Amino acid sequence: MAHIKINEDLPGIRCLMDFRPETAVPLNALAEVLLRNDEGLNKGERELIAAYVSSLNDCAFCQSIHGAVAAYYLGEDTVVNVKQKFKEADISNRMKALLSIAGCVQLGGKFVTEKEISFAKNEGASDIEIHDTVLIAAAFCMFNRYVDGLGTFAPDDPEMYEFRAKKIAEETGYANSSPQ
Amino acid sequence: MAHIKINEDLPGIRCLMDFRPETAVPLNALAEVLLRNDEGLNKGERELIAAYVSSLNDCAFCQSIHGAVAAYYLGEDTVVNVKQKFKEADISNRMKALLSIAGCVQLGGKFVTEKEISFAKNEGASDIEIHDTVLIAAAFCMFNRYVDGLGTFAPDDPEMYEFRAKKIAEETGYANSSPQ
Repeated sequence: MAHIKINEDLPGIRCLMDFRPETAVPLNALAEVLLRNDEGLNKGERELIAAYVSSLNDCAFCQSIHGAVAAYYLGEDTVVNVKQKFKEADISNRMKALLSIAGCVQLGGKFVTEKEISFAKNEGASDIEIHDTVLIAAAFCMFNRYVDGLGTFAPDDPEMYEFRAKKIAEETGYANSSPQ
Repeated sequence: MAHIKINEDLPGIRCLMDFRPETAVPLNALAEVLLRNDEGLNKGERELIAAYVSSLNDCAFCQSIHGAVAAYYLGEDTVVNVKQKFKEADISNRMKALLSIAGCVQLGGKFVTEKEISFAKNEGASDIEIHDTVLIAAAFCMFNRYVDGLGTFAPDDPEMYEFRAKKIAEETGYANSSPQ
């Protein structure tokens, strides 16, 4: 049960956005600018970072919905493999290096060292890509804590997440609905 | 030295907002709605939660600037005492209960239990106040990781933070400048 009185028919962050529309606006705007963009990192890569960090934070709702959006772009196998052991997944070395940075950010900002940054740069990651990786990872350390810290409900049904993911990818994005 | 090429004349998050104005807009809008509001929690209490979580995350820049803004409203002693041992600080039991929730959020969303929530409710905290406490704490788990994860610079001079804090409190807020 949620820690505050919210509409529990809405899962995960959606009930919080319904409860507090004032804070939903900048949160959705942040998700839109970070995830719905193909400059540098493409949409699939951005969602993959979000899903990976959410799995490290053990946030069922966020890893399911962002995993489903990542799978829409990159395929289900890639998402499953990245969550299990990204270093062996069928993704570029540049993406492995960026996921390694994201994993450090999940532990705390100071866990990111010159070693991970150099590895990413050597694999061709740009400054903007490194910036966006750090900020996506940091943002999901917020979203995950928000969703779980207020005890929201995460449905088990994978079809619900697939349905929402398709809608986010093809229609609404994040800024135009209570989306995630 | 920062991990990416940024204008290192600007401290902390300000150089990141200068580097990537697209993400600065929703980040500033989020800070504005969470911190510059006297409904439920007042501005000083909101800044105190931000400074406390930033101190737990050992983020020099964020704890200094939000500590300075909190001190503008509540006095320096309160901020110092809260960072050191908030349960003995001269603040209300309601605020102690909310800081206790914020401390759980800093560890991870699932660390918030019914026990902390009941304690806060028994001390008179409303659902909106509990919501805002969780989201402020979660947001600073993002801001702190963003600032430190990209290796930005935090000046030592307390006067710089006092000057900026006064400007934020009396003039600009967060939405109308590259502020923090």
